[in-house]
Amino acid sequence: MNVDDVLDTAQGWLPAQDIAEVRDRVPIVYVDAVPVRLDHLGQVERVGLLLRAMPDGTISRAVVSGRVLFGETIRQALWRHLTKDLGPEADPQLPASPSPYTVAEYFPDPERSGYHDPRQHAVSLAYVVPITGTPEPQQDSLDFSWVTPGEALGPSVAAEMTGGHDKLVRLALATCGF
Amino acid sequence: MNVDDVLDTAQGWLPAQDIAEVRDRVPIVYVDAVPVRLDHLGQVERVGLLLRAMPDGTISRAVVSGRVLFGETIRQALWRHLTKDLGPEADPQLPASPSPYTVAEYFPDPERSGYHDPRQHAVSLAYVVPITGTPEPQQDSLDFSWVTPGEALGPSVAAEMTGGHDKLVRLALATCGF
Amino acid sequence: MNVDDVLDTAQGWLPAQDIAEVRDRVPIVYVDAVPVRLDHLGQVERVGLLLRAMPDGTISRAVVSGRVLFGETIRQALWRHLTKDLGPEADPQLPASPSPYTVAEYFPDPERSGYHDPRQHAVSLAYVVPITGTPEPQQDSLDFSWVTPGEALGPSVAAEMTGGHDKLVRLALATCGF
Amino acid sequence: MNVDDVLDTAQGWLPAQDIAEVRDRVPIVYVDAVPVRLDHLGQVERVGLLLRAMPDGTISRAVVSGRVLFGETIRQALWRHLTKDLGPEADPQLPASPSPYTVAEYFPDPERSGYHDPRQHAVSLAYVVPITGTPEPQQDSLDFSWVTPGEALGPSVAAEMTGGHDKLVRLALATCGF
Repeated sequence: MNVDDVLDTAQGWLPAQDIAEVRDRVPIVYVDAVPVRLDHLGQVERVGLLLRAMPDGTISRAVVSGRVLFGETIRQALWRHLTKDLGPEADPQLPASPSPYTVAEYFPDPERSGYHDPRQHAVSLAYVVPITGTPEPQQDSLDFSWVTPGEALGPSVAAEMTGGHDKLVRLALATCGF
Repeated sequence: MNVDDVLDTAQGWLPAQDIAEVRDRVPIVYVDAVPVRLDHLGQVERVGLLLRAMPDGTISRAVVSGRVLFGETIRQALWRHLTKDLGPEADPQLPASPSPYTVAEYFPDPERSGYHDPRQHAVSLAYVVPITGTPEPQQDSLDFSWVTPGEALGPSVAAEMTGGHDKLVRLALATCGF
Repeated sequence: MNVDDVLDTAQGWLPAQDIAEVRDRVPIVYVDAVPVRLDHLGQVERVGLLLRAMPDGTISRAVVSGRVLFGETIRQALWRHLTKDLGPEADPQLPASPSPYTVAEYFPDPERSGYHDPRQHAVSLAYVVPITGTPEPQQDSLDFSWVTPGEALGPSVAAEMTGGHDKLVRLALATCGF
Repeated sequence: MNVDDVLDTAQGWLPAQDIAEVRDRVPIVYVDAVPVRLDHLGQVERVGLLLRAMPDGTISRAVVSGRVLFGETIRQALWRHLTKDLGPEADPQLPASPSPYTVAEYFPDPERSGYHDPRQHAVSLAYVVPITGTPEPQQDSLDFSWVTPGEALGPSVAAEMTGGHDKLVRLALATCGF
């Protein structure tokens, strides 16, 4: 059973069994957030990466990612997942525009799109989110670390990401001019 | 029973009863497409509006809109709905970028977000789609007509749209510089 | 003689006489910045408007706007003009992405594009800039005030803006989902 | 003397000597266009690259690029340069939105920004432009060829581009989801 489902259940939104049924029928709405540290000119100095258990069973580096609940706005989902993963002191600066920098389409088939989730077909709206506070890894995150854009794009960090999160980071940095 | 569900059923993807159950549990992924006619410089000359039965029971002007199916990509869903609504000769030019110009969050509560769907919570990725062929209203569309950007933004056309489609058109034209 | 030119001269970049000559020959690169106050979910709560002498000779409400100097990056120009107009305590959050939400093409002919500058043909990259500090009107600004998005879009505030700044604000709010 | 200047002069807009003077004083407005061939779903199948003499004296692969003239709109400049470089049968599909996917800041200093032009400081608005017709290299272009996205991102093609055009292509493909 997935950690995300347990949390949702704890909050009374949807039993884990039901989400499993729904996952076989419709695409699930997700949000992905790439945490960044900016300098005063808005230039990316660091990219934030979690270390966590992934849907594919690996322990990998990853960006913040999670489901949008019934009745929840995209912004509320972003805030909830960022706070859950980075802690209450992270102070994420949510974007003024609702338009994501890319849309990641996760399929159970790893060859389909470059984004892979063995559990489901998920359509994820991806945002770059500047962090002005102090992130602390929470709950199911084992670690959080800042890497430079060069490190984030390098082969060794990319190799520690699965499911297409390396691609998400690469496109996020491209959006920022890298 | 909703026309969209019948079509889905006819194509064997999901019985109408099941989609009704799912709709109470998770947000449903949608796409919205605003058809436009461009001049050779890319400037919007006309906005295309359907006349159709809407989820709220009205007959209204509307943009192309529909559900993304399990296993279907955003691009496939856009193509399917554009072809279904505008006919096989429309020749829609799907965007190279997956990033929508806005994200419309439809809620059963009409006061929640400016986008309203009494049937469900839908998260819709909205795109401006240039049409280079000849659209013909199909199936459940009663009419298709081209209006100028000025007409599309005017009060009389806006009053013929429900559920937030007037807002979708207004934001689409703003994206195009109007 | 224009205030902007005097300042540039004071900083030794280009004499006012020379900029006048250049202005008749090539489009001039500008930046426009629409200051906004966001809530913790990234939703626009207020739009910031200056009161200042405009190129057309009026005293009008306006967004932050100014020339990009030779050798200066877009980000440096944004920072310089925001700091000059809003003061050292404004704490503007420059965007991570270099892509502007729109490009305003100012022409001496007021009928040409919806953006008007009697002095020059200027191509301006326009950004929405969240302000987290305390703006204070500086130097050539007579006032700075926060208005709600509804007020910013209303006819009375729009009537106090010239040169197309009302359009810039309207498109900025559309980008943010309004 | 630069080919671009000769053309401008031939069209009577600005003598080559004057543009040289202006280039030392203000940033020059440019447009860059990355030609792409899309399939019916909007997915990039090919990227179009010119072979031409570059400002740095090399013969290199390059995207369409050129100056915006006094009194000319961005769209007119895009059309003029695309038609000049790809010929009258290219049928470029100019974007509906004026917002570029990135802004390339070319500096005489090659270390400054990743974009380099020894002649000038240029601020270039970059667009992805689908080509539906038949491009033919014109005038100062020695060749035009379509490459796959994989080839465009590979080291051998990138090595044939100078001044940052490889970066322009990479960011363009990232915008398109690659």
